[in-house]
Amino acid sequence: MTQLNLNLFVYPAGHHEAAWRFRGAEPHRVLDITYYQELARRAEAATFDAVFFADGPSLPDNVRYASRFRLEPFTWLSAIAAATSHIGLIATASTTYLEPYNLARLFASLDHLSRGRAGWNIVTTGAPQAAQNFGLDEHPAHGSRYARADEFVEVVTALWDSWEDDALVIDQEAGIFADDTKIHPIDHSGERLRVRGPLNTPRIPQGRPVYVQAGSSEDGKGFAARHAEAIFTAHQTLANARDFYADVKSRVKAAGRDPGLVKVLPGISPFIGSTEAEALALREEFNELTQPEYSLHQLRHLLGIDLTGYDLDGPVPREELPTHEQRGYGSRFQVVVDIIDREQPTIRQLLHHLAGARGHWVTAGTPEQIADRMQEWFEGGAADGFNVMPPYLNGGFDVFADEVVPILRRRGLFRKEYDGSTLRSHYGLPRPASQYASRAPDGQAPTGT
Amino acid sequence: MTQLNLNLFVYPAGHHEAAWRFRGAEPHRVLDITYYQELARRAEAATFDAVFFADGPSLPDNVRYASRFRLEPFTWLSAIAAATSHIGLIATASTTYLEPYNLARLFASLDHLSRGRAGWNIVTTGAPQAAQNFGLDEHPAHGSRYARADEFVEVVTALWDSWEDDALVIDQEAGIFADDTKIHPIDHSGERLRVRGPLNTPRIPQGRPVYVQAGSSEDGKGFAARHAEAIFTAHQTLANARDFYADVKSRVKAAGRDPGLVKVLPGISPFIGSTEAEALALREEFNELTQPEYSLHQLRHLLGIDLTGYDLDGPVPREELPTHEQRGYGSRFQVVVDIIDREQPTIRQLLHHLAGARGHWVTAGTPEQIADRMQEWFEGGAADGFNVMPPYLNGGFDVFADEVVPILRRRGLFRKEYDGSTLRSHYGLPRPASQYASRAPDGQAPTGT
Ligand SMILES: Cc1cc2nc3c(=O)[nH]c(=O)nc-3n(C[C@H](O)[C@H](O)[C@H](O)COP(=O)(O)O)c2cc1C
Ligand SMILES: Cc1cc2nc3c(=O)[nH]c(=O)nc-3n(C[C@H](O)[C@H](O)[C@H](O)COP(=O)(O)O)c2cc1C
Repeated sequence: MTQLNLNLFVYPAGHHEAAWRFRGAEPHRVLDITYYQELARRAEAATFDAVFFADGPSLPDNVRYASRFRLEPFTWLSAIAAATSHIGLIATASTTYLEPYNLARLFASLDHLSRGRAGWNIVTTGAPQAAQNFGLDEHPAHGSRYARADEFVEVVTALWDSWEDDALVIDQEAGIFADDTKIHPIDHSGERLRVRGPLNTPRIPQGRPVYVQAGSSEDGKGFAARHAEAIFTAHQTLANARDFYADVKSRVKAAGRDPGLVKVLPGISPFIGSTEAEALALREEFNELTQPEYSLHQLRHLLGIDLTGYDLDGPVPREELPTHEQRGYGSRFQVVVDIIDREQPTIRQLLHHLAGARGHWVTAGTPEQIADRMQEWFEGGAADGFNVMPPYLNGGFDVFADEVVPILRRRGLFRKEYDGSTLRSHYGLPRPASQYASRAPDGQAPTGT
Repeated sequence: MTQLNLNLFVYPAGHHEAAWRFRGAEPHRVLDITYYQELARRAEAATFDAVFFADGPSLPDNVRYASRFRLEPFTWLSAIAAATSHIGLIATASTTYLEPYNLARLFASLDHLSRGRAGWNIVTTGAPQAAQNFGLDEHPAHGSRYARADEFVEVVTALWDSWEDDALVIDQEAGIFADDTKIHPIDHSGERLRVRGPLNTPRIPQGRPVYVQAGSSEDGKGFAARHAEAIFTAHQTLANARDFYADVKSRVKAAGRDPGLVKVLPGISPFIGSTEAEALALREEFNELTQPEYSLHQLRHLLGIDLTGYDLDGPVPREELPTHEQRGYGSRFQVVVDIIDREQPTIRQLLHHLAGARGHWVTAGTPEQIADRMQEWFEGGAADGFNVMPPYLNGGFDVFADEVVPILRRRGLFRKEYDGSTLRSHYGLPRPASQYASRAPDGQAPTGT
């Protein structure tokens, strides 16, 4: 039976914007690798599929009020790999601000040293202020970022394929370390990228890292349909999540791929209490720790307008929001507009709503209720699993692991132990063959990714 | 009293080109992180200053006969950091083929997660075939690479300084996570690079990673004089090493810096036996495992001519070597020419000579003899310490740690225990203040690195 896939989305101190102020948080450890290693070990004890690190190559503004610096995923996950043995390790990395050869090396190495646990969350980078850290005047346009992303994936896939599986020989007697006829330059020369290859490391345990994707725009969904093996997404309601699920699965099918091999994983940020009232009170406690100056600033990023000066307890000025067209393609914008239309919140209520997880699904309840809701999404065609985003860390994860996971297991919805030790095996994905594997000695390599 | 600084230069299977064929080697573990973690732990038990990883973003040719793929240093050292607590971690990284913002993040993260143990071996990349992996037709010219390197160091230094030490506040009560008046954009706009900053991570334990340098050309020495805190170099004789030492120290002084704060560390590749004859026999055993096809190919890289077809037991055709001017600036070329002129070797003898460590000092003897020679270089003004390059791993390091290190300790030449736990403290280097630290709220940041 298919079961849920569960990732732990790691964020310093936790996903709620006030997490670091919570009495149960350990904000003084946000730069302490052992804090994250402990967290990953707990996630591994709970047989989670993976830990996931977001990333961007710039400093988010408004660091004054929240823990918004960045943990560099490759280094951080390599140190976590050393402290774990089974859990997958998903690093976000940008096709806009990295060179394909460098990115291919970093993932190859992460996969080697973790013995097959690397996943790549492929992003084109959301934050426009990254551009000025790379000598550009402006963040490249959305369509152009995705066009580079397509070619980038083609290039790095070829690099990961460039050593056939049996290229490494290590015959001490004969003196043959590698069979160089099984190591192929990729000779890529495309519209945006030129890379000769081959990669400078033998083929990795998983063949290629697991390809994850996390943009929900039209371009993003098209890209996911072509390349993704797992899709991270943000939805507030079962109905929206179901629409998205059906949409991407049919796009995957249209692209000639098997929808069963593409996992759709919405975020969930659960406040858990022994009664529903206790869970709601916990959520309220977090709301009271938020700082409107910060929250309004975050809202400006999502909506493109600044509500500073408005009465926080008055209505959201719906008529002043930019239209979808004015805003561009940002898919999180629509998530927020839907909340406003559905719930008619005051500004303060909206800020509290978003404070939890930046537009992801925040839900409060008993362990049973949380498990029920996850089951409903899973069985209701809205999710193959979840990106679990604890409001605070590490305690907010512990309560999920200790109280929700056993219920999911009892219901047969989640594994009791790992079957394998690679991320591909947790997700039930095949190990891809090298595109060069069938190459006759003097023939041409088949192309495509 | 000043003591030796000792790094372990890690190379898969070991530094001798036939290391992987030696009976004592473990070539099947060359991609196994635990092999390197064990090695680093042994180096830490021997109170070594650091482990060092070379690097280059391309596949060396001639992988058929030797273990010449690359281990990506940031990921590999992060996993090693997790298995150790004191030893320094020096990663080679290129100013030619990385973006400064990405490099600054990777080192910042390595320094955070190792609590102050990161070192940066600054190279402009030796291997010209890297260019085609980055969309270039040709490797940029030597002078132009070093010009970029200078500006690159200025940029990343400013990025590492961009958060003042006390920018991170974490006042839960007041709701202040960071003092944003102490986080500075760097606004660098130079001839080759434009980077706005600030870095997206708080200041690192060491302030900046330790700056290491490893090019011995004129440009390289000038660069070292301006920036390096440790210099890796290759010399075959005490006399040459002494000249180099005096030369760079005087350049450092001329650049207005303290020569005592720049460690000169030549390579040493020791074959150790309980008698000198045993050590020489061990070396001979390695020589017999070399493969002339491979060795000639390596020689072609060093000398620019191909001696295939010549009688291996005949003399080196001295008159056919390109002149220094024809060859360009490669400083290793001169090392090889000096060997030829000094020792008048046959081609085979030259190949054996270079098989040990690609031009570094290879020496065979008893533990006492090895210690004597190191002491002679140290006290003779030729070295502040060494980059130890075991011919084979891990056994070739163990014998050094077990038999040479105790002698050096007895003579007072090497520490018995660590005084501190950062690489700066091992090397006796001060922690640099942020260049922005003295900035008045509305004033200008002082410039320079
Ligand atoms: C769970 C999740 C995590 C994401 N993480 C990142 C990230 O770490 N870095 C990033 O640049 N974008 C990330 N994104 C994607 C950005 O939201 C996306 O790049 C941006 O919205 C533009 O893509 P789109 O227009 O296709 O949605 C994430 C999205 C989701 C749903
Ligand atoms: C011990 C040592 C290690 C080195 N490691 C590297 C390396 O890992 N990658 C690299 O590109 N160059 C490395 N070099 C430096 C190259 O030899 C140098 O970049 C090249 O020779 C050009 O620089 P130069 O002309 O200034 O010597 C190393 C040099 C020494 C002495």
